[in-house]
Amino acid sequence: MKKLINDPRAVVDEAVEGFGLAHADLVTVSADPLYLTRKDAPVAGKVGLVSGGGSGHEPLHAGYVGRGMLDAAVPGAVFTSPTPDAILPATLAVDSGAGVVHIVKNYTGDVLNFETAAELAQAEGVDVRTVLVNDDVAVEDSLYTAGRRGVGGTVLVEKIAGAAAERGDSLDAVEEIAKRVNSKVRSMGVALSGCTVPHAGVPSFELADDEIEIGIGIHGEPGRHRIKLENADAITARLLSPILEDLAPAPGQRVLLFVNGMGGTPQSELYIVFRAASQLLGEAGLVVERNLVGNYITALEMQGCSLTVLLLDDEMVELWDAPVHTAALRWGA
Amino acid sequence: MKKLINDPRAVVDEAVEGFGLAHADLVTVSADPLYLTRKDAPVAGKVGLVSGGGSGHEPLHAGYVGRGMLDAAVPGAVFTSPTPDAILPATLAVDSGAGVVHIVKNYTGDVLNFETAAELAQAEGVDVRTVLVNDDVAVEDSLYTAGRRGVGGTVLVEKIAGAAAERGDSLDAVEEIAKRVNSKVRSMGVALSGCTVPHAGVPSFELADDEIEIGIGIHGEPGRHRIKLENADAITARLLSPILEDLAPAPGQRVLLFVNGMGGTPQSELYIVFRAASQLLGEAGLVVERNLVGNYITALEMQGCSLTVLLLDDEMVELWDAPVHTAALRWGA
Repeated sequence: MKKLINDPRAVVDEAVEGFGLAHADLVTVSADPLYLTRKDAPVAGKVGLVSGGGSGHEPLHAGYVGRGMLDAAVPGAVFTSPTPDAILPATLAVDSGAGVVHIVKNYTGDVLNFETAAELAQAEGVDVRTVLVNDDVAVEDSLYTAGRRGVGGTVLVEKIAGAAAERGDSLDAVEEIAKRVNSKVRSMGVALSGCTVPHAGVPSFELADDEIEIGIGIHGEPGRHRIKLENADAITARLLSPILEDLAPAPGQRVLLFVNGMGGTPQSELYIVFRAASQLLGEAGLVVERNLVGNYITALEMQGCSLTVLLLDDEMVELWDAPVHTAALRWGA
Repeated sequence: MKKLINDPRAVVDEAVEGFGLAHADLVTVSADPLYLTRKDAPVAGKVGLVSGGGSGHEPLHAGYVGRGMLDAAVPGAVFTSPTPDAILPATLAVDSGAGVVHIVKNYTGDVLNFETAAELAQAEGVDVRTVLVNDDVAVEDSLYTAGRRGVGGTVLVEKIAGAAAERGDSLDAVEEIAKRVNSKVRSMGVALSGCTVPHAGVPSFELADDEIEIGIGIHGEPGRHRIKLENADAITARLLSPILEDLAPAPGQRVLLFVNGMGGTPQSELYIVFRAASQLLGEAGLVVERNLVGNYITALEMQGCSLTVLLLDDEMVELWDAPVHTAALRWGA
């Protein structure tokens, strides 16, 4: 295992400490239990947004804490759910009295731990709503999941619901738009290589030199099938077809196209995939009105990418365009 | 070779085409000869900034075209200098009559080709100034370079000189601040793995499982020495010491600390390096007043990072903070 780390058991603590030093204008770090809050939390009258999950997917979630997006992020160990004893104080810290929305990727550990924390917060008088993200069309049920996994769509839910909370929407309204985005977003990924969890020290899976895995999860969970390496246009079509089948968009529908790198893929390759995907969407009669290209929800150093398509409505476009100021997404601010 | 590409010879053209589709609000792409200009170029009365070089270092340089940074970027083939027949029209396209500054990383091919293009542009009546960036303290002379190589400092020169041009500084003034930044910035990098140029198909160099290369260049050129893998704190100290020796900053000096990923390194590792570097700078009596952490000048999928330190003055801080709107760097706009 070759990594720029010190003690494999200290990777998350040290990375979050470094993140806190680099972005002291944006976030406050609680070291024990480990969570990050927006510098000015709780914001008076504003619904609080909390997300979290296993580490190793950076910039998700700490990179999205700030104005117009998350109020708190709770990082677990690498690929391991955070525990309620960290989710609870993060929730309490960002509640201004307007209530809190938990945005939870659909993995069994995350679901259980956020549920426990939500019950404990409710007992302390905080109105907590939970929005599950389950946008991965690759497989039904998986290594860590009952139902569909939460992947790239999470970033879009957090941005759009974050903008709704920032403009002063009620708890009901923020919950509604988060669920609406989740219902209109689908994703699928491909791996060209595996990745190595630091405290494991060996790759979680391996692919032969001429082999790729279609429908991979963000922890290297198995996808739909392993196939021989194909060119970028063919791989893009393999990822996009099941997404469009599932979404069944009307011709002329406006979409947000998100090409996400898994961590170890050069940016030039992501733009080659974007080129292919936007051509295919055009041929399907859809209009790519917004896009996002880059490493936004990763699997350590895995090579590969995921495609995410969101069916846009006017409100989503307005909230997508609204100012955001976080470490990893920033515009208009 | 496992990459998300189609034809290895079409990688740059297709990636730039995808980039142009994704960022049509920011850039205009000329396909043949290949270069990108800022959408609203030439901007009346503004000095034009042009940079370029071999591809494979994305987001450098196309990702920095836009308001407050570059007016044009000229991508060569992967790790290969662009030719004067592309640099010349890019230069002419962004000249508003106020003159053009070429920001050139110090590699022999880039220097020669930009020089030829500058002479041709001068012959057409454009006042062109050239600023060489040579911030890499690792080695004197290298595989593609006489003198020191241009690496991470290039991003800082482009941002700060870009802000100076945007506020309306004269050609002399933009040239001066670009040269001033270059004189106050130093970098050094480390590789944990090699990288593969698409049309070559095999890694340009290989490292054993327990081996790293200190002082690596952004094309995988040899650095100072190969050593056994060490922990992140020790590697950070090895990179930072020669930088500080060379800069010899006074105690209390304010600096910008830039931790750059080479393309295949997880963000968490970059923040572990940032943590170590900011601690060392603090112990040296320096004040980390600004920072940048992420993949900003890469070597395809290479694992590793570089450290860059810039000695700040008041004007540099003001220009660093000025609004910028490009695909890869954006704030205040």
